[in-house]
Amino acid sequence: MERFVDLADFSREEILDLLALARRLEERPEPRALAGRMLGLLFFNPSLRTLASFQVAMKRLGGDSFVITPGQGTWQLETRVGAVMSGAAAEHVREGIPVLASYCDALGIRAFAEGKDLRADLADTQFRAMAESCDKPLINLESAISHPCQALADWKTLDDLDVPARAKFVLSWVYHPRALPLAVPAAVLHMAALRGLQVTVLRPEGYALPAELMSKAKAAAASSGGSVEETDDREAALAGAHVLYAKEWGSTSHYGDAEGDARLRAGLSDWCARESWFAGARADCRFMHCLPVRRNVAVADEVLDGARSVVKQQAYNRLVAQMAVLHRMLSDTRAGGRNSQ
Amino acid sequence: MERFVDLADFSREEILDLLALARRLEERPEPRALAGRMLGLLFFNPSLRTLASFQVAMKRLGGDSFVITPGQGTWQLETRVGAVMSGAAAEHVREGIPVLASYCDALGIRAFAEGKDLRADLADTQFRAMAESCDKPLINLESAISHPCQALADWKTLDDLDVPARAKFVLSWVYHPRALPLAVPAAVLHMAALRGLQVTVLRPEGYALPAELMSKAKAAAASSGGSVEETDDREAALAGAHVLYAKEWGSTSHYGDAEGDARLRAGLSDWCARESWFAGARADCRFMHCLPVRRNVAVADEVLDGARSVVKQQAYNRLVAQMAVLHRMLSDTRAGGRNSQ
Amino acid sequence: MERFVDLADFSREEILDLLALARRLEERPEPRALAGRMLGLLFFNPSLRTLASFQVAMKRLGGDSFVITPGQGTWQLETRVGAVMSGAAAEHVREGIPVLASYCDALGIRAFAEGKDLRADLADTQFRAMAESCDKPLINLESAISHPCQALADWKTLDDLDVPARAKFVLSWVYHPRALPLAVPAAVLHMAALRGLQVTVLRPEGYALPAELMSKAKAAAASSGGSVEETDDREAALAGAHVLYAKEWGSTSHYGDAEGDARLRAGLSDWCARESWFAGARADCRFMHCLPVRRNVAVADEVLDGARSVVKQQAYNRLVAQMAVLHRMLSDTRAGGRNSQ
Repeated sequence: MERFVDLADFSREEILDLLALARRLEERPEPRALAGRMLGLLFFNPSLRTLASFQVAMKRLGGDSFVITPGQGTWQLETRVGAVMSGAAAEHVREGIPVLASYCDALGIRAFAEGKDLRADLADTQFRAMAESCDKPLINLESAISHPCQALADWKTLDDLDVPARAKFVLSWVYHPRALPLAVPAAVLHMAALRGLQVTVLRPEGYALPAELMSKAKAAAASSGGSVEETDDREAALAGAHVLYAKEWGSTSHYGDAEGDARLRAGLSDWCARESWFAGARADCRFMHCLPVRRNVAVADEVLDGARSVVKQQAYNRLVAQMAVLHRMLSDTRAGGRNSQ
Repeated sequence: MERFVDLADFSREEILDLLALARRLEERPEPRALAGRMLGLLFFNPSLRTLASFQVAMKRLGGDSFVITPGQGTWQLETRVGAVMSGAAAEHVREGIPVLASYCDALGIRAFAEGKDLRADLADTQFRAMAESCDKPLINLESAISHPCQALADWKTLDDLDVPARAKFVLSWVYHPRALPLAVPAAVLHMAALRGLQVTVLRPEGYALPAELMSKAKAAAASSGGSVEETDDREAALAGAHVLYAKEWGSTSHYGDAEGDARLRAGLSDWCARESWFAGARADCRFMHCLPVRRNVAVADEVLDGARSVVKQQAYNRLVAQMAVLHRMLSDTRAGGRNSQ
Repeated sequence: MERFVDLADFSREEILDLLALARRLEERPEPRALAGRMLGLLFFNPSLRTLASFQVAMKRLGGDSFVITPGQGTWQLETRVGAVMSGAAAEHVREGIPVLASYCDALGIRAFAEGKDLRADLADTQFRAMAESCDKPLINLESAISHPCQALADWKTLDDLDVPARAKFVLSWVYHPRALPLAVPAAVLHMAALRGLQVTVLRPEGYALPAELMSKAKAAAASSGGSVEETDDREAALAGAHVLYAKEWGSTSHYGDAEGDARLRAGLSDWCARESWFAGARADCRFMHCLPVRRNVAVADEVLDGARSVVKQQAYNRLVAQMAVLHRMLSDTRAGGRNSQ
């Protein structure tokens, strides 16, 4: 595996293989599998789980990593092609990324959506440009439109919890003080569809997921025996649900229009997930969220501290899922190369 | 050992055991003792010694660590229970800490005093709340009211210097431009008392250590053959002293009252430790300070650069003392657990 | 080797030995050579290549490192001797450096020029003061006037490219929005002279390199069969050139005078290296730059993206050259010491 950029790049079988590898590594540690292998981690945006879990994942497999955070101990990096660099950025990713790649065996990059142009963010323009500069195996640590590590970890969490193959899975928008990127809802939607779940996207007016994402997910669902629909009717959506996955995202009808988005969300602060939401759900309905989460803004304490919540298991599975990705990417002895001592 | 949060949680014998282990590791390295073990280090406040020495301590024992600094490459973390998180913090420690703990075998947390409410800081409210969220072995890297790693290292330094069991030990307030926390004076006071020293706390009016700390230290002294008293008479305090330990801290009579504290300390800038302070002390009287120290504000160059100063030995002993804590905490094969590969 | 502070501290033969070691380590990895060795890395200034490549270099040799960045998770450090520390800095390098040194087997320090006083920067006053506080092997990660790791890596790049012993090497000033330090031009000038190249320093009026640097380089050239001259005539300088090494630096006629420097450079924005510069050079003339580089300000895209550019090879050779320095410094079993487990 040379790239782990989007879950949609992989077939259902390839993902099931990765999940089996994750489970194997969980049960039978391989503390020397990646001995001598080095992972570079380049963070254009803040992180807690990704930052910690990738470092630990490399260590638990016998490898190592280094972290670069532009603007914090490192120059700011320019990403625009052809830019006249007379501003704050002292280095371009066209130098920075291949140089960092030359020091390691695989590179991970986190670069959130700019949130200005929906077309550009859906095409993952910025991440794709950086990916082109990288001639080593590459991992997406969350780009404008994808977060495959989160999606893989969530799939494993659903498996750990024995969530049935055709279970009802509700991906619900929840409130946040400002617009957040589409990466996690896009990745989770596709994951749930590809796993064959009966997916309902629950969101208020103005927050429908882009048609491209819905179409791609419906195709994945069709191939896996699942289904994808959307609604703004919370009661209907949650009736009989096995899983509620809450996530904050920005308005798609007013994408890049901070004022328009703010006007829309001003009336939506009751979209804070509470225990009352689960009235018509299955008694054992699970609550998922990728974290970080604003307590009592996006999700109430009573839900996060209650028995439904599996958010910590999801976060722990980041470590396990990423160990599988790294193992598949870097333990192949055929890969090799000048830095692969 | 599951927790290393406060030196007062341990008996004199347990501490002597830890110091013996520190000495053994210094003489006979165990470079594989913690192979495969991972320490998470969570810093809510700046650090130099703690940041470097814990990373090195794990390495010298064959283990590893990762560092998380909220607000620098990581989200700001909320600590207040029940908070409506509509401000700067995007994640709560009730998620952040158990998630980080799930990635490692032990977690270290540094969280300085808020410096507003003396009762809350004496009760270490914030640190205790975070400790409750952590289901892995936990190390206090300095909390509102305790700094056990510093105290343990200082005890070892006193032993290294053959400071007699009943020596006269003066813990003196020194000047700083603003109020600093009580963690180090509290920890050093208790350490000196438990070691059986004749402790004098030397401080100006308004800077007496809280009665609870003095009482606890007196009880420790009583059990160890030492004594604890306090004064504002520098000459009397230092007469015949074996050790002067200088430390800056905030007014306790005006705790949380920045203006009141500033008025009080405005007249105290002559509390900068100088060679003249040692006129009546023993000729070989040692000078200690936990660092960092503001030269020529808290302590004069002539003292820090002179033969009395053992501040570098103290800092080096942080490494050795912490290796003992980590070894005791993590090398026990009975501990184990899902992450303890 | 106890210190790697300036390339000029070493004879040509010593450098050739280091380069041979670099080549050997590139061909025959020694993944256990520095097992148990710890490198401390202290960054007073931003870094990308140095930060990543030193961490990786230690790892590839079986050792490890830690990073301290004053002001980012660590106190700001005072460097002035005798300072009354009532400002932002909470700790002095006279404590900070020996303490960090006591935790490791070698220390690397990056501290850029203050850019105020040319005499002080040429004497490397600040770095030398810090070096005096360090009783462990020391590596210069770029000081006011030297960057020996860059120079060593560049020498290796010239060798990798089979640049002839007496080739024509042009070190050219290029435009930057503000004055940058003299460390790289000083180090590269000396390296090229000592390698025996025919060196031309090409720079506009006001940007001549200081006479001391030119004299020292001429002496090195004389001993190696090379030559050193300077000009502001670009066409003449580049006629028949084998290598163009571009670098930004501040005015030496207006050193420390930001306004005067700004006036001077205002008319020099056409000193942006373009393909047209190479009209009279050899067809295979190489383009070098130490990075980071501002695209289309200091160097045009057409050069950086063209076949002449070897900037990525230079950056990769940082890793290889530094492995040789670390190996020479830390693998010697005679060195040893209390921390050298």
